[in-house]
Amino acid sequence: MKPYVEMTKEELELQRKELAEQYKEMQERDLRLDMSRGKPSLAQLDLSMGMMDVLSSKDDLTCDDGTDCRNYGCLDGIHEVKELIADMMEVAPDNVIIYGNSSLNVMYDTVARSITNGVMGSTPWGKLDKVKFLCPVPGYDRHFAITEYFGIEMINIPMTEEGPDMDMVEELVSSDETIKGIWCVPKYSNPQGYSYSDETVRRFARLKPAARDFRIYWDNAYTIHHLYDHDQDHLLEILQECKRAGNPDLVYKFASTSKISFPGSGIAALAASPNNLEDIKKQLSMQTIGHDKVNQLRHVRFFKGIHGMMEHMRKHADILRPKFEAVDNILERELGGLGIAQWTKPKGGYFISFDSMEGCAKEIVARCKKAGVILTGAGATYPYGKDPHDSNIRIAPSYPPLADLELATELLCLCTKLVSVEKLLAGMK
Amino acid sequence: MKPYVEMTKEELELQRKELAEQYKEMQERDLRLDMSRGKPSLAQLDLSMGMMDVLSSKDDLTCDDGTDCRNYGCLDGIHEVKELIADMMEVAPDNVIIYGNSSLNVMYDTVARSITNGVMGSTPWGKLDKVKFLCPVPGYDRHFAITEYFGIEMINIPMTEEGPDMDMVEELVSSDETIKGIWCVPKYSNPQGYSYSDETVRRFARLKPAARDFRIYWDNAYTIHHLYDHDQDHLLEILQECKRAGNPDLVYKFASTSKISFPGSGIAALAASPNNLEDIKKQLSMQTIGHDKVNQLRHVRFFKGIHGMMEHMRKHADILRPKFEAVDNILERELGGLGIAQWTKPKGGYFISFDSMEGCAKEIVARCKKAGVILTGAGATYPYGKDPHDSNIRIAPSYPPLADLELATELLCLCTKLVSVEKLLAGMK
Repeated sequence: MKPYVEMTKEELELQRKELAEQYKEMQERDLRLDMSRGKPSLAQLDLSMGMMDVLSSKDDLTCDDGTDCRNYGCLDGIHEVKELIADMMEVAPDNVIIYGNSSLNVMYDTVARSITNGVMGSTPWGKLDKVKFLCPVPGYDRHFAITEYFGIEMINIPMTEEGPDMDMVEELVSSDETIKGIWCVPKYSNPQGYSYSDETVRRFARLKPAARDFRIYWDNAYTIHHLYDHDQDHLLEILQECKRAGNPDLVYKFASTSKISFPGSGIAALAASPNNLEDIKKQLSMQTIGHDKVNQLRHVRFFKGIHGMMEHMRKHADILRPKFEAVDNILERELGGLGIAQWTKPKGGYFISFDSMEGCAKEIVARCKKAGVILTGAGATYPYGKDPHDSNIRIAPSYPPLADLELATELLCLCTKLVSVEKLLAGMK
Repeated sequence: MKPYVEMTKEELELQRKELAEQYKEMQERDLRLDMSRGKPSLAQLDLSMGMMDVLSSKDDLTCDDGTDCRNYGCLDGIHEVKELIADMMEVAPDNVIIYGNSSLNVMYDTVARSITNGVMGSTPWGKLDKVKFLCPVPGYDRHFAITEYFGIEMINIPMTEEGPDMDMVEELVSSDETIKGIWCVPKYSNPQGYSYSDETVRRFARLKPAARDFRIYWDNAYTIHHLYDHDQDHLLEILQECKRAGNPDLVYKFASTSKISFPGSGIAALAASPNNLEDIKKQLSMQTIGHDKVNQLRHVRFFKGIHGMMEHMRKHADILRPKFEAVDNILERELGGLGIAQWTKPKGGYFISFDSMEGCAKEIVARCKKAGVILTGAGATYPYGKDPHDSNIRIAPSYPPLADLELATELLCLCTKLVSVEKLLAGMK
């Protein structure tokens, strides 16, 4: 089929009629599918059930250094789990603080601490008239929600396949001292699945911020979340790169096992320079006596080490890969060559970024919903929920079983075609 | 032996000589004991080892309402655990939010949220010139540490056996709108083991704060932590009492299972009015997708219900009771009638509050340390670590085995006598 823009009004009207009929049929199927969030599927959760058996009442829950995991204490995590998570984060164990079950919570706390108590001695942001964050877009809605909740002004930075537009980042960060941070998902980015190029990481490490309390919020959520065994993205390690560039304190690095073990019962962590860690631990020691060490030990005993964790991730990939490929195949089959949509082809992570024609995303998502398929709300990938082009839709293929996912993707294609045809026809009047 | 104050200089000098010799002997025993924190003992931790077996890889980790405990979601806790914890907190499940492993963390977050975003629409405290908290003294050092960290000014309120001096609380709270909170451990208080009288609770519920964002921080840490089966303290339920008094939003109630199951791997919770909960959940939904539901389910399956939890607490009491009684017996035997010390006789909780003669506590703690026994630092029970009388010492009998505890208490008595004699002699010069 030829591109929609090359069709005559009559051809488009014929299309609309056919598509409307197909849509009606879809509605009659009474679907109830959810493609809205990056949730692991039941099959993926089953992979970690062995965690329930690694600790029993007969086991000694004592660490190598004598720490009793059952009692109070150990503010920044047991040594064994620091080693495991440090390997996962590609840093030294001494650079790591182990937290509770949610890296989102760690990021929230990091911003909150900066507001109440500043960053390494700086003025608390709560005392400043204006604080701004840079937000590569499309990006992760929960990052934007945190900054919005705290009244931090967000500035959109366009994403490319190499990462954020670094010319813009450099110019803004070096000239405006009210800019205190930038949200990054540097590997298999949410939602595109892009990984920052070496050049991008090096430019990040060499930023010269006007604000000395500026930090890069490096949310490496998908660090080992590859879809393929051999065709994998590689990301320069930012902490090391910052040190090399003479900017050791420039970055906070976040990660978790939420999509490795169990999403609600994993382990989150932060990695940073010694100066940053000292600042953070001052606060952490007020906030808690320590996080869940039994769960830390459970992770260590289950994965045994980074090798075991990588093996485990291969099993996740075996479940996720066919889903990503199915979505891509259907998108290609249904929308290829029509000139009404583009989408990414990630080699890892949890999302595919889909772009419709301008001004169509909200309507596409609404039509899908009316036919029983929930997608992430259009606009969610932008600060304040406002996609200036109204074109980006985040596809989350992980949760539905394959057959459901295929149906949902077919519906997405159908709605995209229908809404596009309507849009083009409306433009002809 | 007669009271020290009635002794002549010669008698006191003889005492000093004898006590100094005994102290030297103690030093030679090379003790290494820790009575500093309210940590459960190994025997207590062993009581909960069954928790390691209640979930296995063969089990279904799904809740009654279909929630899969392994996946994301369920912001405020699974229904089953809300019922259990609500029973423990003597409130309705709808009034409860379930958190992670630490009620200290919940309290910290509660203050932090008030600073960054205010309380139910009030001006964020971070925007105010001055914020004050009332601190019943002696009290819990970690409460004071949180308020100090945030630069909140602390005002001492004397404790009585009935609770804080309510005349003072009422006057201050109703006249000063910079006073935004009061820290309370209302049952088996830290460190005295006092429980607030019905009259005190009623007066709390009927406070008329000048600040509409004033809240009572009701840390009911020892709600079911009795030492005796029949001789138990009872505390009026504050949430209900506030509602009755037409002040439903006046209180945040905190609790955890840290000293019921495992200190590092328990479950914390907050109970409050619907208005407060709505305000809190707005923030919570930014901070996390949900806390550890597998651990919540583990607690439900292990305790089965409040009855099981109460049975479990009897086993804790059986281990703790002999320790509290041993300390009291030794204090009575060694210090009774000397007029140089007073101490409380709690029927629950984790601490005994010990008062030496004025100006002696720091030196007593230092002498104990030099002989190998670590006590909570003198002054720790007061804001800013400053005990105006330098007399209060918190005794934490829970952690050491009984024989060690007895030795440590004997050393405490010896040091108290020695320092008191020296003090009295110094006053005679």
